[in-house]
Amino acid sequence: MTLLVSDREVAATLDAATTVAAMRDALLAAHAGRLVAPPRASAPLGGGRMVLTAGHLTGEWYGFRSYDTFGLPESAQLVVLHDARTGAVRAVAVGEELGSRRTGGLGGVAVDALARPDAATLGVVGSGRQAWTQVWATAAVRPLREVTVHSRSAARRTAFAARVRVELGVPARAVDTAREAVTDRDVVVLATTSVTPVIDAADLAPGTHVSTVGFKQTDRHEFGTDLLDVADVLVTDSPAQAGAYSPPMLAAVEPYAGRLRDLGAVLAGSVAGRTGADQISVFCSTGLAGTEVFLLDRLVLLGAAAV
Amino acid sequence: MTLLVSDREVAATLDAATTVAAMRDALLAAHAGRLVAPPRASAPLGGGRMVLTAGHLTGEWYGFRSYDTFGLPESAQLVVLHDARTGAVRAVAVGEELGSRRTGGLGGVAVDALARPDAATLGVVGSGRQAWTQVWATAAVRPLREVTVHSRSAARRTAFAARVRVELGVPARAVDTAREAVTDRDVVVLATTSVTPVIDAADLAPGTHVSTVGFKQTDRHEFGTDLLDVADVLVTDSPAQAGAYSPPMLAAVEPYAGRLRDLGAVLAGSVAGRTGADQISVFCSTGLAGTEVFLLDRLVLLGAAAV
Repeated sequence: MTLLVSDREVAATLDAATTVAAMRDALLAAHAGRLVAPPRASAPLGGGRMVLTAGHLTGEWYGFRSYDTFGLPESAQLVVLHDARTGAVRAVAVGEELGSRRTGGLGGVAVDALARPDAATLGVVGSGRQAWTQVWATAAVRPLREVTVHSRSAARRTAFAARVRVELGVPARAVDTAREAVTDRDVVVLATTSVTPVIDAADLAPGTHVSTVGFKQTDRHEFGTDLLDVADVLVTDSPAQAGAYSPPMLAAVEPYAGRLRDLGAVLAGSVAGRTGADQISVFCSTGLAGTEVFLLDRLVLLGAAAV
Repeated sequence: MTLLVSDREVAATLDAATTVAAMRDALLAAHAGRLVAPPRASAPLGGGRMVLTAGHLTGEWYGFRSYDTFGLPESAQLVVLHDARTGAVRAVAVGEELGSRRTGGLGGVAVDALARPDAATLGVVGSGRQAWTQVWATAAVRPLREVTVHSRSAARRTAFAARVRVELGVPARAVDTAREAVTDRDVVVLATTSVTPVIDAADLAPGTHVSTVGFKQTDRHEFGTDLLDVADVLVTDSPAQAGAYSPPMLAAVEPYAGRLRDLGAVLAGSVAGRTGADQISVFCSTGLAGTEVFLLDRLVLLGAAAV
C-alpha cells in the first residue's frame, strides 16, 4: 500500500523539533557515507525541464524528489520513498511543505551547531515560505527573545511578524530596512529572492551566526563577499553540491573554498565549528540531496507509530 | 487534489480498445511533433539507479515515469501527470499495470496497422505479463479464432492458455515448442526474456505479422537477423530511441536501419505499411517515451467522465 502524503499531513506530523532531529541524523549519515546522494538528473521537455534529485540510505530506503522548471503557479514537488529491502513504494508526498520544512530543518541544525549557546535574538530578511521555516526551526533550537523581520512589502513583513507572535509565541516586529533587521542580532537569516546583496557585513555584531537560503552563486547572490571575508567559520550542508552548481557558489570558489566546512563533519566532531563567542559563523544552505526522502521516511515511521 | 492510481484502478478503467486508441493518438501526436519525449535521465545510487523517462504533450500535460534497477521483488514504477496549464500534479500511478498495458496498446496499434485485415490466428512465445498484454490488445483489433502459446514452463503456458480462454473468450492451447506456436500463424508475438533467438524465420508463413517485445539489441536478442532479412515491412514505435539504445537495436543498425519505419508515420499515411497479403511485417517494440503519461492522462479523463 502506497501512502499519499499531502501538505496537511506533513504539517500535522513534522514539528520543528522532529524535523531538526531528522536533518541532524541525515547529515551524520551523509558524513558517515551511508547516505548516497548523486548530482541531479534532468530531462528537457521544451520550455522547461523535469529534474530529479535522488538518494539512498543503505539498507533502509531509496527514492527521489522531482520538480520542474516550467514556472507554473500550482507546480508541486513530488518525493517518493521506496523500501530498500523490497523495492515497494511506501509513500509519495505531493506539495511544498516537505521540501521547505527540510530546508528549515537543515538551517535549524546549523543554528544549533554554530550559533552561540545563549543566542536569543533573530533578524530575518525575507518573508516567504523559506524565511518562515528558518524561523520555525530556529525557535526549536534556541529560546528566542525577539524576532525582527524586513522584506520589501510592508504588508507581508507585518503579517510575518504577526505569524511569529501567534504561532511561535515569540515577540516579533517588522522593521523598515534590512540593516535594522540584522543589526545587533545573535542569529541572522537571509531568505530572499534577491540577486544582489541585501545586507552589509559591517552591520553584523561580533558573534553573530548567519544562515543564507537564497541565491549565493558567483553570478547572483543575496550577500556579498564582505560576508565571507568576515566569517570565522564557513559551513555548508554539502560541499560537493556547492561546488557542482553552475556557476558554483561564492563560498565554493577561492579564496573561500579551502575554508568551507561540511556541517556533517562539524556535527560528527571531526571538524571544528565555532570556537569563540565573538566569531562570526556563516551557513550556506545547499539542500543536501536525499534529505527530502529522509524526512518522508521519518514521517512514515512517525505516522505508523501513531496508529 | 492529486489522484493516487493503483493497478486495480488501471485494470478497471483501461480496457484493451481504450488503451489501443490512446496509444494510436500518442503515436500520431509524436509524429506531428506535439509529444516531446527526450532520452531517459538517471541517477546512480550505489547498487542500482533511479531512471526517469519524461514526456510533454504541448498545452496539455507533462510528466514522467520512474523506475529503478535494484531488481527488488516489489519494486514498482511510478507515473506522474502534471497539468501543463497550471503545473498541478493531477495523478500519480504506482504499480505495473499502466506500463504493461501501455506496451500492449502499442503492440495492438502495430497489429491493427500492419497485420492482414483477415488475421485470425495468433502464436505467442512467452507467458509473462508482457505476453499477456500483447494478446489482450491483439484481441481488441482482430477477431481471433485461436491462440497458441509456448514458454519454457509447461505449467505457466498451460495457465496462460486457460486465461486466454476465460478472460478473452478465445480458443487457446499450450504447445511444446516455439516452432509449433508460430508455424502457420497470421500474427506472432515474441515476449520472452531470452538473449538468443527463440524462433527460426523460415517457420513463419508468408503474410505473417510479428511483434517483438523482448531483447532486440545487437548483443542480445530473442530473434535473429534472419527475421529482419525476411521482413518486407520493418517498423518501430520510436526510431530515435531504437538507435539511442546502448548497444543499439539490431533493426537500427545497417543494413536494416535504412528500412526501419516509424509506426506514427505509417498511421499518418506518410509512409507505407503492408502493401501485399504475402508480405511479412515486423514490429520492433521500443516503448515510446511519454506514452505512460499519455495513458495516465486518458485514464484520468475517463475517470472524471465516469463520475
